[in-house]
Amino acid sequence: MSLTRIHNFSISLDGFATGEPQTAEAPFGHAGERLHEWMFGTRFWDAGGTAGVDNAFAERHRHGIGAEIMGANKFGPPGWHDDPDWKGWWGPNPPFRTPTFVLTHHPRPALEMEGGTTFHFLDAAPAEALEIARKAADGQDVRIDRGATVVRDFLAVGLVDHMHLVQVPIVLGRGVRVWDGLDSLEDAYDVEAVSAPSGVTHLTFTRKLTR
Amino acid sequence: MSLTRIHNFSISLDGFATGEPQTAEAPFGHAGERLHEWMFGTRFWDAGGTAGVDNAFAERHRHGIGAEIMGANKFGPPGWHDDPDWKGWWGPNPPFRTPTFVLTHHPRPALEMEGGTTFHFLDAAPAEALEIARKAADGQDVRIDRGATVVRDFLAVGLVDHMHLVQVPIVLGRGVRVWDGLDSLEDAYDVEAVSAPSGVTHLTFTRKLTR
Repeated sequence: MSLTRIHNFSISLDGFATGEPQTAEAPFGHAGERLHEWMFGTRFWDAGGTAGVDNAFAERHRHGIGAEIMGANKFGPPGWHDDPDWKGWWGPNPPFRTPTFVLTHHPRPALEMEGGTTFHFLDAAPAEALEIARKAADGQDVRIDRGATVVRDFLAVGLVDHMHLVQVPIVLGRGVRVWDGLDSLEDAYDVEAVSAPSGVTHLTFTRKLTR
Repeated sequence: MSLTRIHNFSISLDGFATGEPQTAEAPFGHAGERLHEWMFGTRFWDAGGTAGVDNAFAERHRHGIGAEIMGANKFGPPGWHDDPDWKGWWGPNPPFRTPTFVLTHHPRPALEMEGGTTFHFLDAAPAEALEIARKAADGQDVRIDRGATVVRDFLAVGLVDHMHLVQVPIVLGRGVRVWDGLDSLEDAYDVEAVSAPSGVTHLTFTRKLTR
């Protein structure tokens, strides 16, 4: 069974997954790196990092994924679609190594990169995009890998099977809110929380099985 | 040294401390009892309850408090100030057992209740109210005991020394937000998080000592 998964999705105490404004110099706006420091400290990110609970969660990100879906705001800074040479933040060899579907109102031809990543550009609603990505995943899982708006859109229509959130104990005050429109989201999920020595709290939402 | 403390302050994942609308029948609006079920399960609340981490935090609420400050929305449902006979939700013997200061734009004469609680009604800003409550506390601590607006107001002007929040893994979608206007609150505090087997996560904010 191919699942739809979200991993390593960091949010502030006040529910923002990114700060503002998002620019080429500051992809997370005024949040800077504060939402992701927990991950930089793990072995997943750096060979000298920790191998405890933060790392255990972080590593799950890369296992069993056959396709990725991301939002236009993850692929580039505002206005990237006006630059025909923009190929994402990640250089010639992006870390995805699967078919990767970028949701955008400005589709362009597919970009085959080194290392197994091919970017496909789709102007599609979540259900349609997921159907396409599911086929490309060839039996493996599909990862929804932000920004916040895309994550929220997929949650709102009930298309997410497993979500791993990381709550960072900071108050951002502004940015893109994750929870808007998701009242009672917990009804469809088993929710678990575990705090880490690093100070973050890992929250997992696993869809309840209906028998 | 007399501190200003907040305890057992439950919030949803999306940062609401109460639902809406707040009425005499539903003091927490559509949130119902969901924000406080964790506490009902403890020995602090019920002799048959648990005695683990939830209870350890819950019990701190009552120790060392010499005065309490609460908002008008905690003292009664909307419009209580039009009822000259309203004496709070708690019957003739309220659980506070100290001078208790109700912040309201409609002050009235003090109400001496059974068991040591006297309600005083103040139309005052946080700093002024705290000065009055501090004197009444006679060397013990002052508790700020909601609603969300009052908690936020005291945090915004830097008057809180210790805060215990309880994050309940539900998404309320609407209500009164705690975090608005508190960007970078964490800079002034040591923040700790610990998840409980009940599913909630206890967050403590302890003001950093300046030497």
